[in-house]
Amino acid sequence: MSAMDTTADDAEFELPQLYRHHVFACHTQRPPSHPRGSCGASGAQPLWDRMSKAIESQRLTDIGFTASGCLGFCSAGPLMVVYPEGVWYRPTAPEDIDEIVESHFKQGKRVDRLVMVLTR
Amino acid sequence: MSAMDTTADDAEFELPQLYRHHVFACHTQRPPSHPRGSCGASGAQPLWDRMSKAIESQRLTDIGFTASGCLGFCSAGPLMVVYPEGVWYRPTAPEDIDEIVESHFKQGKRVDRLVMVLTR
Repeated sequence: MSAMDTTADDAEFELPQLYRHHVFACHTQRPPSHPRGSCGASGAQPLWDRMSKAIESQRLTDIGFTASGCLGFCSAGPLMVVYPEGVWYRPTAPEDIDEIVESHFKQGKRVDRLVMVLTR
Repeated sequence: MSAMDTTADDAEFELPQLYRHHVFACHTQRPPSHPRGSCGASGAQPLWDRMSKAIESQRLTDIGFTASGCLGFCSAGPLMVVYPEGVWYRPTAPEDIDEIVESHFKQGKRVDRLVMVLTR
């Protein structure tokens, strides 16, 4: 099959996408003493609030932002994943959120310093 | 740029993917009388339980299954989305779940009769 055929097939089967980027941000909150830890216990909520507000105030209507349950890798949190590209980020400071919004969401450039490469 | 160059560039920038398919299933539960409706009020939970158990019992370790908050489109629920392909499904019966698992997750074939094409 030639490259041309592949492109035609892909176009035929692809669906229109609702979002350019769809973010899922872990909202799991376990008690601070819980042995597994949690994104909530690692300070996730103020970061997700900041991201949600930035998306809304900057009218980034093609960015979806959805709360998620546990994404696994609890000790690595706060954890979020951006699809369709499957980039996992671990932001820990407000500036990290601002950089993801500006670079990844607005310019389409991954923020490598915040990427978590996870393996099963 | 040739097709070969494109492939090389893509490979350089792509990250290894944690999951072949990552499912986000809406777990929002509003009271039955709530005007917005909710996936929970539309009978989502037994369907998600069935999917979660099927993934586990069939050892589909490259399928991620994560609970999500509200995905929007509440009146269309129960609603789930599969990334990276960005396919939104509205299963309503146990057989729908079985077909998504068998066809989409195991054979990589989208189940068109259950697809929701959503627009903002």
